[in-house]
Amino acid sequence: MNIIIIGLGLIGGSIAKDLSEIKGINILGFDKNHQSIENALANKTINGFIDNLDELTIEKYNDSLVIIATPPRASLEILRALSSLFNSNITITDTSSTKSALEEILLEFKYPNNIVLSHPVAGSHLSGQENSLKGLFKNKEVILSYGQSVLSKHIEKVRNLWKSMNARISNLEGNVHDYVFAHSSHLPHVVSYALLMTLKNLDQTDISKFSGGGLDEFLRLASSSSEMWADIFTLNKENIISAIDALEENLDIIKSKINKDTQEIEALLLDLKNFKEENY
Amino acid sequence: MNIIIIGLGLIGGSIAKDLSEIKGINILGFDKNHQSIENALANKTINGFIDNLDELTIEKYNDSLVIIATPPRASLEILRALSSLFNSNITITDTSSTKSALEEILLEFKYPNNIVLSHPVAGSHLSGQENSLKGLFKNKEVILSYGQSVLSKHIEKVRNLWKSMNARISNLEGNVHDYVFAHSSHLPHVVSYALLMTLKNLDQTDISKFSGGGLDEFLRLASSSSEMWADIFTLNKENIISAIDALEENLDIIKSKINKDTQEIEALLLDLKNFKEENY
Repeated sequence: MNIIIIGLGLIGGSIAKDLSEIKGINILGFDKNHQSIENALANKTINGFIDNLDELTIEKYNDSLVIIATPPRASLEILRALSSLFNSNITITDTSSTKSALEEILLEFKYPNNIVLSHPVAGSHLSGQENSLKGLFKNKEVILSYGQSVLSKHIEKVRNLWKSMNARISNLEGNVHDYVFAHSSHLPHVVSYALLMTLKNLDQTDISKFSGGGLDEFLRLASSSSEMWADIFTLNKENIISAIDALEENLDIIKSKINKDTQEIEALLLDLKNFKEENY
Repeated sequence: MNIIIIGLGLIGGSIAKDLSEIKGINILGFDKNHQSIENALANKTINGFIDNLDELTIEKYNDSLVIIATPPRASLEILRALSSLFNSNITITDTSSTKSALEEILLEFKYPNNIVLSHPVAGSHLSGQENSLKGLFKNKEVILSYGQSVLSKHIEKVRNLWKSMNARISNLEGNVHDYVFAHSSHLPHVVSYALLMTLKNLDQTDISKFSGGGLDEFLRLASSSSEMWADIFTLNKENIISAIDALEENLDIIKSKINKDTQEIEALLLDLKNFKEENY
């Protein structure tokens, strides 16, 4: 079987490292950065490469699994560029943290039967192939999104891909996926950036010395790839903006309770502590 | 030398564990919860206890160092209850995360010459004596706040206390302390609670399954003592409310940039990533 990994960054590079340990797979890379291809060839994590996505229409690629592992906005362009492969025998998946915009393309093409979207909930605040890791997906959640028209052979191929890397698999419809991740992942990243802006605007320059536990962990998220997060924020903007609105309402509630008395704020904090311990 | 630890919780209990390893110190506990006294006696981390703070006026306690290690609002009451010891030979310190309200009492008593406020930037989201730890303060920052009227012998006694536990020592005036910590520590806690409120209000109950990295670390702060954080929020309310206001303004800026285009938000995120890497 041929597996074509489009984008050999942190995620694509880590997939290649895992798959290169499995026999009987021919792993091909595609990356506009030729240095990434050369590194992956040198590391023997890919067996070869393609120069042009049009090559995938050649007969010998008929059994392929294509993984789009580029930043989210590039994934839109690439999915569209692969439209000649829609409803073929080739299985197509991706690794993007947002799904709604990809699903708009699927809608436009009347839900091709060979596309299964994947979101491996794994990564790092570091990016790029040089930070890719063997075992990155082990025991990590991978969320699959696909419509009713998708053929089960394609679903199985994508499930088996992630299972071979010891990931755990869940299903969420694309719009539910984007709503859930707006709150569980995208909102915490927004907050990390907003906190950094707040600290950056202060006169006091030595805040970091006095940060104690907590702040460092919050700010770590802001070291992530700016390109990827700009893509995620704009591609999931409706959900994220409504999540920020809800957060701001809750900040206002906390402000008003802080202004009143200790008992009222203490009751709220205790209620939230209990909720946290039961659910997270 | 007698060291009297008022409050044998996480901080007081950890101080007792460290000091009990040093020879020539008589460690006495005071706690309204008699079980805490009994546990500390059983563990041999204190040598004895006092039943009443009035005992401290007795001649034999003349050389004492008194450490107030109670929740912040209780610390106000206890500082006031110790007013008969103000300007005596006894050295008084505390461990509170907020200083302005304590300094109001000092102002009221015309800045006693024997009070050196301490904030050990160490702790845990766990609280109580059962979670106290030997070595909790090792390589941690302790911030001292004291006015010009304080005698150097008292300053040295408090510096030596923390040095004996291998802490690092800084100085900040009380009002600067509360401004800095409103941003570096109190604001991240507010955000953790507000994020939890936002998740609690959602229909979706399985968010935790899809949280990935980041969210867990944010929410961990909400497991801290509700009593302590209600005290901190209300005792430092002016600084915290203005920090929340600044955060909300920055959230609004992010929202407007998300709404515009990818390039504008990406430029902001890259700028913040660079700021983070240079400063934190």
